Amino acid sequence: MQAVTIDRGRSAERIGRDIETLSGPDYTLSNEAIRRYAYTDVYESTLRFFTRELEELGFAVERDPVGTLVARNRRKGEPVFGIGSHCDSNRNGGKYDGTMGVVTALEVCRLNAEHGLGLPLQLVSFLEEEGSGFGQMLLGSRIIAQRVTEEDLRETFRAVDDGRSFWEHAEAAGYEPARWREASHVLDDLTGWIEMHIEQARVLQDTGNRIGIVNAIAGYVHADVTVHGRADHAGATPMDFRLDPTLVLAECVLELERLARAAGKGTVGTVGEIAVVPGLINAIARQVRFSLDVRGVDENAFRGVARDIAAFAEEAAGRRGMTAAHGLRQTLPATPLDLRIVAALEQAAQTTGEPHMTMPSGAAHDTMCVADRVPSAMVFVPCNEGISHSPLEDARPEDAALAAEIILNAIAALV
Amino acid sequence: MQAVTIDRGRSAERIGRDIETLSGPDYTLSNEAIRRYAYTDVYESTLRFFTRELEELGFAVERDPVGTLVARNRRKGEPVFGIGSHCDSNRNGGKYDGTMGVVTALEVCRLNAEHGLGLPLQLVSFLEEEGSGFGQMLLGSRIIAQRVTEEDLRETFRAVDDGRSFWEHAEAAGYEPARWREASHVLDDLTGWIEMHIEQARVLQDTGNRIGIVNAIAGYVHADVTVHGRADHAGATPMDFRLDPTLVLAECVLELERLARAAGKGTVGTVGEIAVVPGLINAIARQVRFSLDVRGVDENAFRGVARDIAAFAEEAAGRRGMTAAHGLRQTLPATPLDLRIVAALEQAAQTTGEPHMTMPSGAAHDTMCVADRVPSAMVFVPCNEGISHSPLEDARPEDAALAAEIILNAIAALV
Repeated sequence: MQAVTIDRGRSAERIGRDIETLSGPDYTLSNEAIRRYAYTDVYESTLRFFTRELEELGFAVERDPVGTLVARNRRKGEPVFGIGSHCDSNRNGGKYDGTMGVVTALEVCRLNAEHGLGLPLQLVSFLEEEGSGFGQMLLGSRIIAQRVTEEDLRETFRAVDDGRSFWEHAEAAGYEPARWREASHVLDDLTGWIEMHIEQARVLQDTGNRIGIVNAIAGYVHADVTVHGRADHAGATPMDFRLDPTLVLAECVLELERLARAAGKGTVGTVGEIAVVPGLINAIARQVRFSLDVRGVDENAFRGVARDIAAFAEEAAGRRGMTAAHGLRQTLPATPLDLRIVAALEQAAQTTGEPHMTMPSGAAHDTMCVADRVPSAMVFVPCNEGISHSPLEDARPEDAALAAEIILNAIAALV
Repeated sequence: MQAVTIDRGRSAERIGRDIETLSGPDYTLSNEAIRRYAYTDVYESTLRFFTRELEELGFAVERDPVGTLVARNRRKGEPVFGIGSHCDSNRNGGKYDGTMGVVTALEVCRLNAEHGLGLPLQLVSFLEEEGSGFGQMLLGSRIIAQRVTEEDLRETFRAVDDGRSFWEHAEAAGYEPARWREASHVLDDLTGWIEMHIEQARVLQDTGNRIGIVNAIAGYVHADVTVHGRADHAGATPMDFRLDPTLVLAECVLELERLARAAGKGTVGTVGEIAVVPGLINAIARQVRFSLDVRGVDENAFRGVARDIAAFAEEAAGRRGMTAAHGLRQTLPATPLDLRIVAALEQAAQTTGEPHMTMPSGAAHDTMCVADRVPSAMVFVPCNEGISHSPLEDARPEDAALAAEIILNAIAALV
């Protein structure tokens, strides 16, 4: 089959125009950042924008029982290939995270029509990926994957703004949360799924690649270590009389780096929070708490690092006469993506002659909730300096247009 | 000369009684802690207590121009041996820090009378050692040592409670701050000086000694290091793409421990404050600031460590592609104490047969401001678990009574 060559300039223009439109005053609660989340007027306006554009292309557009947008150019029951992302934002977000993926999926739908390819497509824009509305990440796709309970939706998940439940808010917005289990049908007819997203890191930029083809999404362990030492006078306490927990912290920070590098396979480990008690220049700390963020696409590798650093902290504290306690916050398994879809994307990228690489995603995405049921992959485009979740977020419509061409050709090869 | 043997039980009883008196409601602003500082009613009551007790012993009691209490059993111009400490407290202080030193000096004056020794004595209770009133440590003794400027007293030093100047408060309390330079005369007639204080650390307790004879007071360097890294997504940024300043922090914490141990001579180094920006579990830090507290009695040793750790931080940051900035907060030189007075105290301690050791003081004391002009030393007694600056502070009147005997005999041997 011959690959389609698109007019990338025109696609880039349309993608850029859509992104600028969706950063206008009707589409964000703040004029200093993109702030857009479920059940707000600006979010509704955004879904209506996509609805209009997709209906013009002959798509039937509907919402699932809680508000995820689903548009298809085939009747229900007929196989379709899924594309899309999310169009909600961080509270202090940028124009590109999520939205560029939906806009690019829309562009794929346009190109499908313009080139008369007749590909069977379903565009999805997931509700509440960022958690800005209810503090729950990947909420729409977790509801579709049935990774929530009714109790969660009725009681536990509450609005950041007013504390009312997700359930109440969904009903007030005209949805039917009581039918949330039916959201699983969103995936029923999908033969495959590709999500495009900005990378949110600097690998593509720093390696000079315009496209990343994602073959796995990292799982993670989030945990805390608390080291109990002894508060003593920093001047009056000789080195041999100390139980200083900052030394255990220091050993753990360096050991985590060593373990993550040794584990390889994209495993990463980070200490991002450090809290010293009492935290005075002239006092040896009584206690230090620090966070652990360990991720990777290889379950054995990253879970091994998470286990080893917890054990190391205990040993390191013990060697110095102190104790360390380890507490798990949250963990999610790694999500391997579909080899056949990844291969089709690689082939399509190869054909363009543009620099690209295959890579894992360190960040979580809605695709994690799709991949269990549907063969899935993702496409990344670079974002400037890796900055995301910030008004400074920047990405190039030209790269998104290239991604649209690659996704279009991969789907054409797959269906 | 024959050493005097005192009735330590009786002395312990009197010392204990005085300390309990001075922790009663007339002598502290708080009933949950000792809180006593310059120009408050409770501080005035405390000075009056000592005045009454000393006048009963035939001492002439006066105040210097800002409120340091000076009592002598000889006329001005006649040589006297100085003893004392401070009787102000931390804002959330205990009964012993400072006050036990003045109470023990009072007990030395009582014993001098009871044993008919006729030693020429001058008791001093320095104003504002803790800085609770005006945020300025060692204020009374620094005024005596002329280590302040008139500008400091008139303008810069302001009350923690109401922001009014030290000058205003001193005048309102009936003092004559305009004559502050005359405070230097407090030291004019001293042939020697011994301050007793609780140790504020755990060396005496942990080594089983009842008495510490202090042969030097540590100098210190207080500084900050700020490491500039790069904020990146903790999941999406591979280990090789990071500029994580927590790794430089970790190397510096361990290197400071190594340097302090290698320098020896009582040199200590502490990182007590750590501030991570932004400080989120899933974000590689953009910046880490940490404090350095480096102290020791050997100028070359501790200043070498302070220099070396600053240079190391810069190198460690550079090796990882980051930068580190070093900022000095404050520094004070070490204060060597007088060999002859230390030897007299050691001899007197030896005579008692009680366990004692010669040691440096890691904490600062008023004696630092005396030792330039007057041959000086200090005596430490243990405090439980090294706790000070806390209502949990605890020390034994029995040890203070032993200190009184040792100080009495040392002075008898010296004058």
